[in-house]
Amino acid sequence: MAVYTEVGDEALATFLADYDLGSIVAFRGIAEGVENSNFSLRTTQGDYILTLYEKRVDPADLPWFLGLMEHLATRGITCPLPVRARDGAALRMLAERHAAITTFLPGVWPRRVRPEHCGPVGQALAALHLAGRDYAPIRRNALGPDGWRPLFERARERADDVAPDLAAELDAALSAILAAWPSGLPVGHIHADLFPDNVFFLDGRLSGLIDFYFAATDLLIFDVAVCLNAWCFEPDFAFNVTKARAMLAAYAALRPLSAAERAALPVLCQGAAIRFLLTRLYDWVNTPPGAMVTRKDPIEYLRRLRFHLAARDEHAYGI
Amino acid sequence: MAVYTEVGDEALATFLADYDLGSIVAFRGIAEGVENSNFSLRTTQGDYILTLYEKRVDPADLPWFLGLMEHLATRGITCPLPVRARDGAALRMLAERHAAITTFLPGVWPRRVRPEHCGPVGQALAALHLAGRDYAPIRRNALGPDGWRPLFERARERADDVAPDLAAELDAALSAILAAWPSGLPVGHIHADLFPDNVFFLDGRLSGLIDFYFAATDLLIFDVAVCLNAWCFEPDFAFNVTKARAMLAAYAALRPLSAAERAALPVLCQGAAIRFLLTRLYDWVNTPPGAMVTRKDPIEYLRRLRFHLAARDEHAYGI
Repeated sequence: MAVYTEVGDEALATFLADYDLGSIVAFRGIAEGVENSNFSLRTTQGDYILTLYEKRVDPADLPWFLGLMEHLATRGITCPLPVRARDGAALRMLAERHAAITTFLPGVWPRRVRPEHCGPVGQALAALHLAGRDYAPIRRNALGPDGWRPLFERARERADDVAPDLAAELDAALSAILAAWPSGLPVGHIHADLFPDNVFFLDGRLSGLIDFYFAATDLLIFDVAVCLNAWCFEPDFAFNVTKARAMLAAYAALRPLSAAERAALPVLCQGAAIRFLLTRLYDWVNTPPGAMVTRKDPIEYLRRLRFHLAARDEHAYGI
Repeated sequence: MAVYTEVGDEALATFLADYDLGSIVAFRGIAEGVENSNFSLRTTQGDYILTLYEKRVDPADLPWFLGLMEHLATRGITCPLPVRARDGAALRMLAERHAAITTFLPGVWPRRVRPEHCGPVGQALAALHLAGRDYAPIRRNALGPDGWRPLFERARERADDVAPDLAAELDAALSAILAAWPSGLPVGHIHADLFPDNVFFLDGRLSGLIDFYFAATDLLIFDVAVCLNAWCFEPDFAFNVTKARAMLAAYAALRPLSAAERAALPVLCQGAAIRFLLTRLYDWVNTPPGAMVTRKDPIEYLRRLRFHLAARDEHAYGI
C-alpha cells in the first residue's frame, strides 16, 4: 500500500490554507507506489497529488527532485509540476513529514506492456535527458555502481536463503560488471526508475512520467538499460527484441547513441539488472514477514541478469 | 491496501466499451477499504469508482446491495449510484471478479471525529432508514445476533492468546446479550458499518455515505448502536456523551425513537460492540502474520463492550 501516514482533516485544511488552490473537494489515498504516501487531492481549482515523503527519501534530496521536476515540466516534459504555496515554497511539512503538492497527470499505466508502448517510452526518455541538460545541480546516484557492492555485503549472508548459491553467483557477476563498467560515456540527469507503473498512456499516447524520487546524475545510457530491463522482458523472462528495438530506435532518433554507448549496452543492462536485484534482495532479507509492505521477488532480476551476462554485444538488443 | 486484483488496461477498455461513459482519462487504485478492490476512474464523462468484489462478498448478495444503493440514491440519499451499462445491467464481470461502476462522491472522511460531525451522521442515518422503507427485498444480517455465537466458536480456542481470559469474558457477555436481545422493535434496511471512513464531509456538511456491502435488514436501532460505537468513543476509549447526544437528537428529529428502542440502547450497543469485536478477533486469530491485510485490534472493542455492559440505562448515552 502507499499510505503510510494518515493526514488529519484539520491538518490538511491548515496545510492547504497556505496555497492558492481553493478549497478541498475530495481526498483519497492512492494504492500505487511503495516509497511514499500519495493522495489524490481535488480542490475547487483542479486535481493534484499530495505526497508525504517517508523514511526512505533523504529530505536533503527533496529540493533537487522538485527542482528537476519543475525544470522538466516547464520544458515540455509531461511530468508532475510541483505547486508552490503563496510563500513560493513547494516543499513543506504536513503530519510530521516533508510534503509537496504536484499537478495531476491524466493517463493509465500499462498493466501489460505491448510493443507499441516501447517506442514512446524510448522517445520520452530521450526527451527527458535532453530537457535535463541545463539543470545545473547534480545528485550522485546512491544506487549506481559505487553503491552495489556495499548493498550486496549487507544482504550476502542471507542471499542463499533466497536461491541456492545466489551469494556466489552475485559476487562473481558484481565483480565482472564493476571491472567492465565504462567511463567517459555521456552523463546527465536520469530518471533511474522508469518502470511501467511510472508511465501513463492515454488514447495510445504517452501522457506522463511520474515518480522522480530515484532520479540522479549518472550515465544516460544507464537509464536506457533500466528501461530495457523494465519494459522488454516477457512474463516468462524471454527478452522481446522487438520491444527493445522499438525503444532504442525511438530513443536514438532524439539522442543518437555513440558507438561506445551501444557497445556498452550489455554491461549497462547487467548493471541495471543487478541494481534492482540487490535492492529487492536487501528488502527481501530485511523485511520482517509480518510487515505491511510488498516484497518484490529478487529472482525476477536474476533471470534478467543471466540474459544480459549471455549477451555477446549490442546486437542482442536488436540493434 | 485495497487493490487485491490488478486490472489489465486492455481488459478495462473492453469492459468500458459496454458503457456510455466515454473514454478513459485516468485510473488509480484507491488505498482505502479492506474488503474489495476499488479504483478511481475518470472518463471523458466524469468521475466514477470501479469496484471489484473480492472473496468476502457473496456474489448472490450483490444485486441486493446495488439495488439498495440505487433505491437510496434516487430518493435523495447521497450514496454511490450504480451505473448501468448499455444493456441495463450494473453488475458485470472484470478480471474474473464481479464488478460495478458507481458514481464518485466528493468529500473527505473525518480522520478525527469532532462533535459537529455526529449530528449530521445521526440525521443521515435516519434519512437512510426512512428512504429504505419502500425497498422491498430483504437481506438477512449474517453478522447480526444469530451469527455471533458461531463466529465466537470459530475463534474461541485462540481468544486467550489475544488477551487473558478473553474467551470466558466473551462467552459470558455473549450469553447475556443474546438473552436480553429485544424483539418487536422497528426493522428496516441498515447500513451496519457506518464508520467515519464511510462518511464524507465537504465544507463542514455531510456529503456522502459509501460502502453498503454490510447492509442488511435488521433492527434500525442496531444501526444507531453501531454508530454510537464507531463515532462516540475518544482515542482513550472514554465515551463522549456530547457526541452521542448530538447523534441521537439528530436521528430522533427525523425518526423518533420509541420508549422501547431507547430502553434497549445499552444491550444494542453491547451487541454492536461484540459484533465488531468478534469479526476482528476472528480475523486476528485467522490471519497469517505475513498476510497483506491490516489486522484491526479486537481489544478496542472489548473496551467499548465493557462501557456498554456497565451502562445502567439509556441515560448513559446522554438521553
